[in-house]
Amino acid sequence: MPRTEGLHVADDKREQLIDQYRGTRDVSEKLCDPLAIEDYVVQTIPEASPPKWHLAHVTWFFETFLLKVFVPRYRPFHPLFEFLFNSYYNSVGAQWPRSRRGELSRPTVEEVYAYRACVDEAIVSLVNTATVADWAEIAWRLQLGINHEQQHQELLLTDLKQNLSLNPLYPAYREDLPAPSGRQAPALSWLHFEPAEPLIGHSGDVFAFDNETPRHRVLLQGFRLASRPVTNGEFQAFIEEGGYSEPSLWLSDGWSVLRAHDWDAPLHWRQIDGQWFEYTLAGLRPLNADEPVSHVSYFEADAYATWAGKRLPSEQEWEHAARGRRVDGNFRERGRFHPEPAEEGRKKPLQLFGDVWEWTRSPYGPYPGYRRGEGAFGEYNGKFMCNQMVARGGSCVTPRDHFRASYRNFFYPHDRWQFLGIRLAEDA
Amino acid sequence: MPRTEGLHVADDKREQLIDQYRGTRDVSEKLCDPLAIEDYVVQTIPEASPPKWHLAHVTWFFETFLLKVFVPRYRPFHPLFEFLFNSYYNSVGAQWPRSRRGELSRPTVEEVYAYRACVDEAIVSLVNTATVADWAEIAWRLQLGINHEQQHQELLLTDLKQNLSLNPLYPAYREDLPAPSGRQAPALSWLHFEPAEPLIGHSGDVFAFDNETPRHRVLLQGFRLASRPVTNGEFQAFIEEGGYSEPSLWLSDGWSVLRAHDWDAPLHWRQIDGQWFEYTLAGLRPLNADEPVSHVSYFEADAYATWAGKRLPSEQEWEHAARGRRVDGNFRERGRFHPEPAEEGRKKPLQLFGDVWEWTRSPYGPYPGYRRGEGAFGEYNGKFMCNQMVARGGSCVTPRDHFRASYRNFFYPHDRWQFLGIRLAEDA
Amino acid sequence: MPRTEGLHVADDKREQLIDQYRGTRDVSEKLCDPLAIEDYVVQTIPEASPPKWHLAHVTWFFETFLLKVFVPRYRPFHPLFEFLFNSYYNSVGAQWPRSRRGELSRPTVEEVYAYRACVDEAIVSLVNTATVADWAEIAWRLQLGINHEQQHQELLLTDLKQNLSLNPLYPAYREDLPAPSGRQAPALSWLHFEPAEPLIGHSGDVFAFDNETPRHRVLLQGFRLASRPVTNGEFQAFIEEGGYSEPSLWLSDGWSVLRAHDWDAPLHWRQIDGQWFEYTLAGLRPLNADEPVSHVSYFEADAYATWAGKRLPSEQEWEHAARGRRVDGNFRERGRFHPEPAEEGRKKPLQLFGDVWEWTRSPYGPYPGYRRGEGAFGEYNGKFMCNQMVARGGSCVTPRDHFRASYRNFFYPHDRWQFLGIRLAEDA
Amino acid sequence: MPRTEGLHVADDKREQLIDQYRGTRDVSEKLCDPLAIEDYVVQTIPEASPPKWHLAHVTWFFETFLLKVFVPRYRPFHPLFEFLFNSYYNSVGAQWPRSRRGELSRPTVEEVYAYRACVDEAIVSLVNTATVADWAEIAWRLQLGINHEQQHQELLLTDLKQNLSLNPLYPAYREDLPAPSGRQAPALSWLHFEPAEPLIGHSGDVFAFDNETPRHRVLLQGFRLASRPVTNGEFQAFIEEGGYSEPSLWLSDGWSVLRAHDWDAPLHWRQIDGQWFEYTLAGLRPLNADEPVSHVSYFEADAYATWAGKRLPSEQEWEHAARGRRVDGNFRERGRFHPEPAEEGRKKPLQLFGDVWEWTRSPYGPYPGYRRGEGAFGEYNGKFMCNQMVARGGSCVTPRDHFRASYRNFFYPHDRWQFLGIRLAEDA
Repeated sequence: MPRTEGLHVADDKREQLIDQYRGTRDVSEKLCDPLAIEDYVVQTIPEASPPKWHLAHVTWFFETFLLKVFVPRYRPFHPLFEFLFNSYYNSVGAQWPRSRRGELSRPTVEEVYAYRACVDEAIVSLVNTATVADWAEIAWRLQLGINHEQQHQELLLTDLKQNLSLNPLYPAYREDLPAPSGRQAPALSWLHFEPAEPLIGHSGDVFAFDNETPRHRVLLQGFRLASRPVTNGEFQAFIEEGGYSEPSLWLSDGWSVLRAHDWDAPLHWRQIDGQWFEYTLAGLRPLNADEPVSHVSYFEADAYATWAGKRLPSEQEWEHAARGRRVDGNFRERGRFHPEPAEEGRKKPLQLFGDVWEWTRSPYGPYPGYRRGEGAFGEYNGKFMCNQMVARGGSCVTPRDHFRASYRNFFYPHDRWQFLGIRLAEDA
Repeated sequence: MPRTEGLHVADDKREQLIDQYRGTRDVSEKLCDPLAIEDYVVQTIPEASPPKWHLAHVTWFFETFLLKVFVPRYRPFHPLFEFLFNSYYNSVGAQWPRSRRGELSRPTVEEVYAYRACVDEAIVSLVNTATVADWAEIAWRLQLGINHEQQHQELLLTDLKQNLSLNPLYPAYREDLPAPSGRQAPALSWLHFEPAEPLIGHSGDVFAFDNETPRHRVLLQGFRLASRPVTNGEFQAFIEEGGYSEPSLWLSDGWSVLRAHDWDAPLHWRQIDGQWFEYTLAGLRPLNADEPVSHVSYFEADAYATWAGKRLPSEQEWEHAARGRRVDGNFRERGRFHPEPAEEGRKKPLQLFGDVWEWTRSPYGPYPGYRRGEGAFGEYNGKFMCNQMVARGGSCVTPRDHFRASYRNFFYPHDRWQFLGIRLAEDA
Repeated sequence: MPRTEGLHVADDKREQLIDQYRGTRDVSEKLCDPLAIEDYVVQTIPEASPPKWHLAHVTWFFETFLLKVFVPRYRPFHPLFEFLFNSYYNSVGAQWPRSRRGELSRPTVEEVYAYRACVDEAIVSLVNTATVADWAEIAWRLQLGINHEQQHQELLLTDLKQNLSLNPLYPAYREDLPAPSGRQAPALSWLHFEPAEPLIGHSGDVFAFDNETPRHRVLLQGFRLASRPVTNGEFQAFIEEGGYSEPSLWLSDGWSVLRAHDWDAPLHWRQIDGQWFEYTLAGLRPLNADEPVSHVSYFEADAYATWAGKRLPSEQEWEHAARGRRVDGNFRERGRFHPEPAEEGRKKPLQLFGDVWEWTRSPYGPYPGYRRGEGAFGEYNGKFMCNQMVARGGSCVTPRDHFRASYRNFFYPHDRWQFLGIRLAEDA
Repeated sequence: MPRTEGLHVADDKREQLIDQYRGTRDVSEKLCDPLAIEDYVVQTIPEASPPKWHLAHVTWFFETFLLKVFVPRYRPFHPLFEFLFNSYYNSVGAQWPRSRRGELSRPTVEEVYAYRACVDEAIVSLVNTATVADWAEIAWRLQLGINHEQQHQELLLTDLKQNLSLNPLYPAYREDLPAPSGRQAPALSWLHFEPAEPLIGHSGDVFAFDNETPRHRVLLQGFRLASRPVTNGEFQAFIEEGGYSEPSLWLSDGWSVLRAHDWDAPLHWRQIDGQWFEYTLAGLRPLNADEPVSHVSYFEADAYATWAGKRLPSEQEWEHAARGRRVDGNFRERGRFHPEPAEEGRKKPLQLFGDVWEWTRSPYGPYPGYRRGEGAFGEYNGKFMCNQMVARGGSCVTPRDHFRASYRNFFYPHDRWQFLGIRLAEDA
């Protein structure tokens, strides 16, 4: 985690940081505008926290790592909020159990907004009055907190999607989302990559998470990468040919999960009178065959690839292919909140950024030379480096300015509640 | 279930029924006045439904068993509400799982109130226009529905208590509840009952549930009944003498439950810095030693009785002792929502009615000659006649006009979330 | 528990007791003759202990309650056997978990037999040398131990049946058991009983368990009792008419169990190519329609009765009908180890004793005036008086001389691994 | 999987193969010599199969993949053994559930030995009569079967250790095992490795599993490797300094497992009156501080490394360090069945081979260019390439001639029932 130091703090630096902070905070609340109070409360699976919790937790993060540290005699907004809104930082203290966040009707939504306002005021004041000695650390922590809140903005939407999706009324998050594009996805082609020894990982001054460092060289054999993600229509063929009932296509653990949960389609698919529908943030809609398939687990992605005679790319292959390309695509700012069909004529590979996170075959682990930080910040990423797989590329609910080509997301191979999709690869 | 028939329906009969209906419906909503929207949504254990669900379910009951049957071409308020708000009537159809009622943010509270208003209008219209031919059945079903809603008024409060109690903020249901009485409970004495052959059960025209019939004769040996329920202070002595760690005091199944859930006190007790507190509908309060102990399971009641060298009364003994006494006591109408210390000088046995349901040693079963009804009404009581124990006497949240001396309530022996207390008995 | 006292102990009294002891001990071992060593070890459900455990546990009972108490400086056979072979006597000490009895390969079968021999020798010596002062207590405890071992002889067989039944090889306990009778069950008729006030329960000097006392008077309304138990053929009709898929026939808890375990027939039934087979102690055999149905739970018995428009008898009705009749029937001594078709011409009700335990509608509870004993013997029966139902009449694997008309057996309503059957009743 | 082809099959080739086959089969049975029949039956955790099952399963492997394929009109020994003794080959058919292998008393041990004898005879006959056309495939499959049986010889011992260890009698597998060495482990030192681009993986004609291929080049940064595994004494210091109660040392999933299972020491450690003991195949013994710690999970290994300020090596680093060294060490052939203290003066790194499997930080995955085989053989390794970590080096119960430096073993990070230990590494 790079930390800069200086001799004085220019006013415009303070203003810039406050703008960025306020901007991020505002987005979180705007994302909640369409919600009924009841929607803020509900949790249906341990992974999918209620919006109320997200709004409070990101606030707790600023309070804990900035206000409590740098504001003399800071008095917390409420003595129990540390317990209620700490997610997993054992070095900070005990936590209300993650799976029971939906059991708390109080604090009310109104009280959570009051908490936010109170912390916001204190943060702005802190930034405006920070001494030179503290500035670098404060600026870095604020940067981290802003990125942290952006991550939770994505989670807020995917968790909400999960929590509304189980309701038989299939409520829409927003009624005014754009209608699905009628565009047809272009045919799949293959992009060839020669053997290479690229540098992988982040370096430089721009903010990045510690798990993207250190930059290091890797050996890549030649490979081919699919020109676009797998579509719903292609995945439907997998289903129709018995993909969910043929154990030889599946990893052993995947087959166990499939049987334990009776999986027979991606997470939000519903079959009604023989036709496939998909629950989206706009409500239940007929499945669009040209959109990238999403809400599949790693196990499903791997089984699909096996069925197709291909494999998933490694995260190094993915990053090598992405290097030097402009980060642009169907991110959250586009306001669709759903993947779109790929567009003919664009520079390939299509949809590398945005739309859906792409599962890679790479287990999430430390880069060579990585060392977990000390204390609470060491818990941010490092302690999850086991049992999870890396996903790359961002999704239709990822903030674009939160994303980089070196960005590593990670999920358990059975996770499906994110916008997780499939891009195929093969050996050259 | 007594059903009357006549040749015409007098207007005042219609008005009387409508008054009773509207009165009951109003109470349900008034009970919810103190709630935040968020409180309507949350469920923490399968047994404790959210207020929103109760409000909708009792409405569904009227819609299903009256409007759908007697109103020609009745169009349900919403096609999915039958599925969402049916509790356990398999003969009506499938049900949303009980343990997942807290996963539904929609319909919103506002929509549920709209549902209520719409059904209320239709019910009033039905009563006003019912033909002579239908009247008896309609009147009886409405009576049943009213009693059903009264039962859910009690559950709404006890479930709410459960759901708020797990919140570390210990929110009060109402801030304006009366302070605990400073009254001291009188010393325990014993009331003697000679051997007898009393008639047990309900008969007559007043509404009663089918499980209170048929009235029948039983043989009772001589017994003694405690003059009042066991107090918190007395129960504390049981705890302090190691009651929760001495297996010989417990039924075998009780001991298993105790160990599985680490029980060491009644449900809502909390020990903080060596002092006992109790969560009440007025929030967390220091434990009052003179109040009747409540929120104990049958297992705890039985273990306490064993420890005290006594036993629990049978439901026949209880009803025999209660026969002929005026039904009066600390019921919901008194507005305390919590048991009070017994009052010296009153006619003994004290607190037989109201304050706390009293566990009896009687398994819940059919009275001799009882036959389960056909169809959905047969599911109301009969199908639960196994594995549960009878509790008698009503509680501080039971509506008084819902209660009779022959009233049989029933719970699993591990249940503790109701106002369940202990009255001791012994053989003469 | 009657205890006799005298001034001296006659030699023939000692001999008689030793004979009875030795006889019972021999039977246990003879029952194990057909077993392979491997059969002694396996446990498939928590309820069904391995034969090795039964052989050791009954020995532990004699060692604990006689040798350790009355033999000065008695040195236990092995210091850990108290822990390993105590079943549920918390007042004696901690116990190896019941569900894990099949995890112990040691002590070996040979070592368990050595344990038995060693304890036998010490018991015989104790009886031969007991002083007058101790005699009554020793004789009574030995009587209890003998009856206890007889109970475990039945369990040894039913547990073994359970444990072998899950093996796809369907091994027979004995290959030489008699072939099924070709007898046809007589048509069902109904025996009428007038209202009565009979005495229920045991009294007198003959050994009985404390749960059969005190003898007390009950009020019975008039009723009718079926002339014989329900047959496999009759139960098949229930299945074919959809009995297992019609919730209105079932108790609520029963329906939950059925769905959780996918019940669609009695425990040991297997459908192979459209034909019903039944696993018996003689191996897998085509289902015999004329034999009494067995291995049904209380829930199934109750659902069947509901379907048939009848009910189950109470245990008082059953005992009233059985009073004064000679205890004779298809008990273990007959050597069939399986229920037989009822026999035309015998005195009705047929098969009241032996063949199958008959579920009653009576929850297992204390008789009026019953008090649980102190210490370990109080744990024998009393602590199970909750959540279980009474079964009456003995079965084809019950030792006849262990049985009385007042005998009360008890099982959870979901239990099916015993020879449990159905006799119908109805109100007069 | 290398397959040789030729024009004729020399007799000595046949003999050589038969010798190898017979030798391996004999070892399996010799390993069982010390067992009581009861020991063959018991299973205490899903991972630890009974010896009887291992003996039958490896036989089923030969029967299924050789006899059923190459012997015309081959009649299986028993029609149900395919179902009972198939482990996880879905392409072969359904399987008796892994977690319930201890529920089967039949076939008896005697019958399993008869099964082995029968298959042995048929295999020998097949090898003696195989045609040139079939030879290469038969020879390769037999080689695979032999290696498969060797893997199960190790599992037989570790599973047995697990299954006996839970018995409070702590039975020894063999009473005649050598006493622990009194040797003192040498002080830990560090071996330096320069950055390198070594070839990793197997190539050549010698048998190896497909997961060891293809051989490929990797980039390694400079690193240091510990001169010997972590000892019990060193691990004790970790315990004493609170290693098991400090969450910051643990991976997030590891901390969850620790709390769920109350881990506070390696698997077979027992604390008795303040002193540490360890269950070994020779029974319970005082913990030897100089022996390598074993029976630790990946989570414990990682937490220890974090505590020590080091890390675990990658499997590539391990293999690079092992390349070119003679495979020698405390393997099963040495007859100790337990790790020994490292020996001063030997060439470092000490104990790279044998003693304990060494956890690496590498998730188990496919080497670049690896493709899972078709059909059943594709299920041997490939379907497990998710959620598991690689362990290297073999253990004191691994057959030495089964092992290679490129050998990759793999376990879930929570697994502890193998001889799994820790070697530290650090960045140069």
